[in-house]
Amino acid sequence: MDSLSQRFYSVIPAGGIGSRLWPLSRADAPKFLHDLTGAGVTLLRATWDRLAPIAGGERIMVVTGRAHRAAVEAQLPEIRDENIVLEADPRDSTVAICLAAAVLRRREPDVIVGSFAADHVIRGDRLFRSAVQQAIAAAEDGFITTIGIRPTEPAIGFGYIKAGESLGIDGAESAMRVDSFVEKPDAERARQYLDDGGYLWNAGMFIARADVLLDELRSNEPELHDTIVELAASWDDPAARGPAVDRLWPRLKKIAIDYSVAEPSAAKGRMAVIPGHFGWDDVGDFASLAKLNSNGRANDLAILGENARVLADASSGIVVSHSNRVVSLIGVKDIVVVDTPDALLVTTSENAQRVKGVVDALKISGRDDVL
Amino acid sequence: MDSLSQRFYSVIPAGGIGSRLWPLSRADAPKFLHDLTGAGVTLLRATWDRLAPIAGGERIMVVTGRAHRAAVEAQLPEIRDENIVLEADPRDSTVAICLAAAVLRRREPDVIVGSFAADHVIRGDRLFRSAVQQAIAAAEDGFITTIGIRPTEPAIGFGYIKAGESLGIDGAESAMRVDSFVEKPDAERARQYLDDGGYLWNAGMFIARADVLLDELRSNEPELHDTIVELAASWDDPAARGPAVDRLWPRLKKIAIDYSVAEPSAAKGRMAVIPGHFGWDDVGDFASLAKLNSNGRANDLAILGENARVLADASSGIVVSHSNRVVSLIGVKDIVVVDTPDALLVTTSENAQRVKGVVDALKISGRDDVL
Repeated sequence: MDSLSQRFYSVIPAGGIGSRLWPLSRADAPKFLHDLTGAGVTLLRATWDRLAPIAGGERIMVVTGRAHRAAVEAQLPEIRDENIVLEADPRDSTVAICLAAAVLRRREPDVIVGSFAADHVIRGDRLFRSAVQQAIAAAEDGFITTIGIRPTEPAIGFGYIKAGESLGIDGAESAMRVDSFVEKPDAERARQYLDDGGYLWNAGMFIARADVLLDELRSNEPELHDTIVELAASWDDPAARGPAVDRLWPRLKKIAIDYSVAEPSAAKGRMAVIPGHFGWDDVGDFASLAKLNSNGRANDLAILGENARVLADASSGIVVSHSNRVVSLIGVKDIVVVDTPDALLVTTSENAQRVKGVVDALKISGRDDVL
Repeated sequence: MDSLSQRFYSVIPAGGIGSRLWPLSRADAPKFLHDLTGAGVTLLRATWDRLAPIAGGERIMVVTGRAHRAAVEAQLPEIRDENIVLEADPRDSTVAICLAAAVLRRREPDVIVGSFAADHVIRGDRLFRSAVQQAIAAAEDGFITTIGIRPTEPAIGFGYIKAGESLGIDGAESAMRVDSFVEKPDAERARQYLDDGGYLWNAGMFIARADVLLDELRSNEPELHDTIVELAASWDDPAARGPAVDRLWPRLKKIAIDYSVAEPSAAKGRMAVIPGHFGWDDVGDFASLAKLNSNGRANDLAILGENARVLADASSGIVVSHSNRVVSLIGVKDIVVVDTPDALLVTTSENAQRVKGVVDALKISGRDDVL
């Protein structure tokens, strides 16, 4: 392990429920606690296993909700107590990542933090680690660094990063300046981005020196920065943490780190991007999940679930079976069937993005028991 | 009640499982024990209630399997013991109807029997009874009589009856000779039948003097006739019935009454048909069930199930909910979702006829627990 890696600390925000994967993902069984690839491990555990070789498992911090503490500890029995940051309630990604960075900076002033979602699927761990190594070097050089995924198709479900000039950083040979972040495109624009070659998928990975990250936050969201830093000051004092959380947590602004840090930083030319050549998917909805599990064969029926009992005739799409019921499909194409003990979803790949609307409707109608 | 009606006895064969309605209908909960219209009563009970006014509830016989005795008695608490005929195992419609006729003929030599399926849906009880009254008159005149339903659309799921000359029978003014029975047609032929006006749907209703019915059976299936008559001779003797069933039941040939009686009788010009102007459906599959429950509105989502919790967006077809799970549909058209505690079916109206194939596949694969 080189000396830079020794300064590296991974942060895994494990917060989102993944409403677009309801009724599989839900409040008490969020997406990161599921095995969505049939690999036999949860996405959270796979994320840990991917990060541990970089700086060691003792240098991985997980930020999660109080309700998920036991589940996270069950998944990650080797995690150190001080590396579990419990959120009183969800405050979006700026708080999750910057609070971790602020706590870690107090412990190690020159720490380099890297934040990686708990619920993404990555294939090609060696390529991933090599990209992270370069990102660490670029971060040491003062850049807030992201890893952008080289597109393999004209995806419309992801945001993009427009890469600029090469930065010529030692140990980060492929680092480029981030020209800008680009919203999810329409199909035509996605095709242009793919053809252009200068656009990468925004995978939400951020690697930076903690002090650089927090400075950037201060310049854009000074109040939020100060509250986070104040909270971090009490974090490692058992007597002080509780009162500090009670007092400060309600003040924490909910804002995605894209808006509080990444975009403003890019606008100032202070962001770098390392192109990642590994396979990546945020498994944002059941259409992605179907694709991920069909091994690229269209007209295939992907089946997810340890004890799935599925009988299918002339059907394609995906069945997620979390019950022991017999599931029979006849002549349904691109179907999405998610079968759980208390809720059933039937839709199509085409409509996968609308699943969140059902969750919203269930909330409104007071049927929280199945959320 | 006129004197002819006093001689009338209804027979309800309650045998078929209704495999095309799996997993709603199944061995221990056959179609006739379900409320398929949301009326609040089972099809069997509705059949009883429709027939009771004709000659009284004490003149209705039900032929069913031993396994269904308790369920039938629960549905029809007023049924007389001697009016439940229990089959040792299913032997098709000739045995069910002709055994009932033979038993009843021994009790009342001049009885007129009328057989009506336990699991059809009829709307317009007054029109139904008026058709039965005419059928009784035609039966008394020596005809094996059926009630054919006036088609309302070019249905391809039913067999047809080609009606011939008017018979001019007293009390059965609309009786016509049956020219022939016609198999389920293709769409083009169904359209021709509808335009022609001389074709009626075969609803499987047979009304005849018991002696005429049994004579017709004897001339076509003499062995089966003799076995049925021998069995009937012991039926009302508690000591003799058991041994007779043990000895004779295995010999009973499985053959539909259409082939053993109706078609040969029609070929000899001995069948009459009364046109029925009431609403009728055999609810043969989930496409019929969806149509029946959508009140004729296309693009409607029919929902069946007392405690159904369905959340649907841009979806049409039918949901049958026999669990208390939340069922969510998004953007699925003409869908069929049947949700039961141990089995789930997802198909489309178009594929409704293929459901039986799933049942066969489950049988072959040994998963009888859900059949």
